[in-house]
Amino acid sequence: MSNQSPNERFYAVIPAGGVGSRLWPLSRASAPKFLHDLTGSGQTLLQDTWDRLTPLAKERIMVVTGDVHSHAVAEQLPELNTKNLILEPSPKDSTAAIALAAAVLMQREPEVIVGSFAADHVITDDAKFQRAVREAVEVAATGKIVTIGLQPTEASVAFGYIHKGDRLASETACEVREFVEKPNIKLARKYVESGEYLWNAGMFIAPAKLLLEVLQKTQPSLHAGVMQLAEGWDTPQRQSLMAQVWPRLTQIAIDYAIAEPAAAEGLVAVVPGLFEWHDVGDFAAIAELQSQGRKGNLAVLGHGKVLADSSSGILVSDTNRLVALIGLEDVIVVDTPDALLVTTKEHAQKVKSLVDVLKQSGHSELL
Amino acid sequence: MSNQSPNERFYAVIPAGGVGSRLWPLSRASAPKFLHDLTGSGQTLLQDTWDRLTPLAKERIMVVTGDVHSHAVAEQLPELNTKNLILEPSPKDSTAAIALAAAVLMQREPEVIVGSFAADHVITDDAKFQRAVREAVEVAATGKIVTIGLQPTEASVAFGYIHKGDRLASETACEVREFVEKPNIKLARKYVESGEYLWNAGMFIAPAKLLLEVLQKTQPSLHAGVMQLAEGWDTPQRQSLMAQVWPRLTQIAIDYAIAEPAAAEGLVAVVPGLFEWHDVGDFAAIAELQSQGRKGNLAVLGHGKVLADSSSGILVSDTNRLVALIGLEDVIVVDTPDALLVTTKEHAQKVKSLVDVLKQSGHSELL
Repeated sequence: MSNQSPNERFYAVIPAGGVGSRLWPLSRASAPKFLHDLTGSGQTLLQDTWDRLTPLAKERIMVVTGDVHSHAVAEQLPELNTKNLILEPSPKDSTAAIALAAAVLMQREPEVIVGSFAADHVITDDAKFQRAVREAVEVAATGKIVTIGLQPTEASVAFGYIHKGDRLASETACEVREFVEKPNIKLARKYVESGEYLWNAGMFIAPAKLLLEVLQKTQPSLHAGVMQLAEGWDTPQRQSLMAQVWPRLTQIAIDYAIAEPAAAEGLVAVVPGLFEWHDVGDFAAIAELQSQGRKGNLAVLGHGKVLADSSSGILVSDTNRLVALIGLEDVIVVDTPDALLVTTKEHAQKVKSLVDVLKQSGHSELL
Repeated sequence: MSNQSPNERFYAVIPAGGVGSRLWPLSRASAPKFLHDLTGSGQTLLQDTWDRLTPLAKERIMVVTGDVHSHAVAEQLPELNTKNLILEPSPKDSTAAIALAAAVLMQREPEVIVGSFAADHVITDDAKFQRAVREAVEVAATGKIVTIGLQPTEASVAFGYIHKGDRLASETACEVREFVEKPNIKLARKYVESGEYLWNAGMFIAPAKLLLEVLQKTQPSLHAGVMQLAEGWDTPQRQSLMAQVWPRLTQIAIDYAIAEPAAAEGLVAVVPGLFEWHDVGDFAAIAELQSQGRKGNLAVLGHGKVLADSSSGILVSDTNRLVALIGLEDVIVVDTPDALLVTTKEHAQKVKSLVDVLKQSGHSELL
C-alpha cells in the first residue's frame, strides 16, 4: 500500500473528444463542443472543466484529445503541462483514451488514482462537485471503481441509470448493483420513483491499477496495446509505437469494457452527486440551461447584435451580423460564418441526421 | 389633334422608387426592391418591367429613380437611353416623379400619352398586360386619364379599390365613379361580391397635357415647379434648376393629387386587367408567389446551398452560406452578408416596424 493519502495519489483525466454533431454548425470536427463557450460564462467548457478540477488536483491534470486539437487545447489551457497531453491520431472511443492515460500515469506513479471527467459537461455547483469527487477518491483507495451518480431531477430517457445497492462505510457512497441502459419513459419513471437509481454521467474514479486489471480480463488485446504504449510513452519510442499500435486498438465505450463488468464483480461504488449537471447534448438543452426554466425568454450566446420581437428560444451567434427575429417560439438559430441553422427546440435532436446528410452529400468542409 | 396614332404617341414611364422596408434585409436604401430578383426569373423586377413594356413602347421608356441608383439602373438596363433617365436628388413621392416625366416628355412631344408603371410589381401574363395597356392608350387618346384595375381574386385589405361606372365606347373600358381607400375586411368582401370594384394597382395612362392640367388645378405650386424644371430640362440649366426647385416640391401621392380629383370630374376611365398581378409587398407575398398556392413547399430565392427537413415558407439567400432548416412551417429566412432575418409568414408585415427600430437605434448602416 502507498504511504500517500488518497488525495495525494489523485490525478484528473479529461477525455476531450467527440464532435457533438447535435450542436452543428457551432460544433465542428475542427472545433468540437468542448472548445466552445456554451454557457455564456466567458470560458469554454474545457476551461470550465479545468477550473473545476484544479482545486482537487492542482497541476495534476491530464488531457486526452485528438491531435488536430492540440493547438486549441494548449491555447485554452496555458497551465497544462505538455507531458500531460495525450494526442490521439484518430478517435478510439473512451476506453482507449482513459486506459492509456491511466497506464501512462501508472508508469510514472504506480499507486495513482485516476478520475475521468468529460470536457464537455456543465456543472453549476463546483463545491458540491468537489466534495463528491473527494469522497469518491477516498472510496477508490479502498479498492473500488467509483462513479459519481447524479440525483435524477426528472424521468429522463437521455441517460443511462445506476442501480444503487447497500451503503458502504463511507459518508454517502453505496455499492453499485448494475448499470442500466437508457430506458424508455415508463421504465425511467419507475427508476426515478424507486429512489434507487441515479443518472450515469460517465465519471469514474479508480486506482489505475484496478482499472487496468479489469480491462485485462474483459479486453485483453486492448489492454496489451495500451500497456505497450504506456511503457514506451516517456521514451523516444512514443511516436513509432503510436503509429504502430494505436490504429489497431479496439474501439469501445468504457461503460461496456470496464464499468458494467466490474459492477457484476461487485467492484463498483457510487457517490451520489448533489450538484446540478448538464451534458448539453443539443441546442434545446443549452436553451433550457440559459433560460433557467423561465418561459418565453430568448437566450443569446455570442457577440452578435440581436433584435428580437415576440421570440423565445436561443440564438447562438458566431458572426458579427445583425440577427432579427420576429414571432418565433422556441426557435433555435445558430449563425456561423459559413453555415446557418434554423430549427426549433422540438427538433433539436434532428440536427445529427442533418450532419449525416452533409457527410453523405460530400459537404465535408462544413463538418 | 395629333396626326399620330395613339400608340405612336405612347411613352412608358417607370417610377423606380421606394425602399420596400417590409423586404428588409434584402431590400435596402442602397439596393431597393426593384433592383432584386424576387421571382426567381433570373432578372430583377426592374428588368422584368422593362421587358414587359418594350413590346408596347420600344425604346420609348423613361425611368425616374433616386440619383444613388443611377449606376445600378444603367447597369441593369443597358438599352435605356440616358436622355430618358430622370434622377431625383431626394424622394418626393409619386406625383413629382410622374409629373416631371410627363412634363419633360411633353416638352419634347406635345401630344405624348404617358403611361406610368411601377418598377417593383410582378405580372405573370405579359400578353394580357399589353392588351390592357393598348386599350388604355386608345381610351386615353379620347381625353381620359385611364387606370388599369385588377380583377380581385380575394377580398384583400391591402389595396385601394376602383368603383367602376358605365361602360365606355371601347372594348372593355368603363368610367370610374371613384377611388376608395384600403377597406376593412367586411367592406372588402362587399366590394368583391358586388362585382363593381377592381383593385387599384396605381397604373395610369393619360395624355401628358391632361395629367398636368389636372395637377395645375389641384396642386398649382407643384405644377409650376415641375413645368419650370421641364422647360430647362434639355438645356444647360437642368442641374442648377434641380438644385433650386426640386427640394421645394410638394410630396404627395398621385392618387390624391391627380387620380381622385380627376375621377370626381368624370375624367377617369378604367380598363380591367385580366392578368395576374402582385405587388410583392412583403416576404409572405413572395412566398405565396413562389409556392403558387402549393402548401408545404419551401421556396428558395438566391444562390445559397439549402438543406431543409420538414420545412415550408421561403428562404431568400444573398450569401454563399449553407442554410439548414428543420421543422419550421411557413418560415421566412432572409440571409444577407451583414444581417439575418428569421420570422414567419404570419409576421411578415412586422418587418417594417423592425426597420423603424433599426433607424431609431442608429443602425443606419443596415438600412
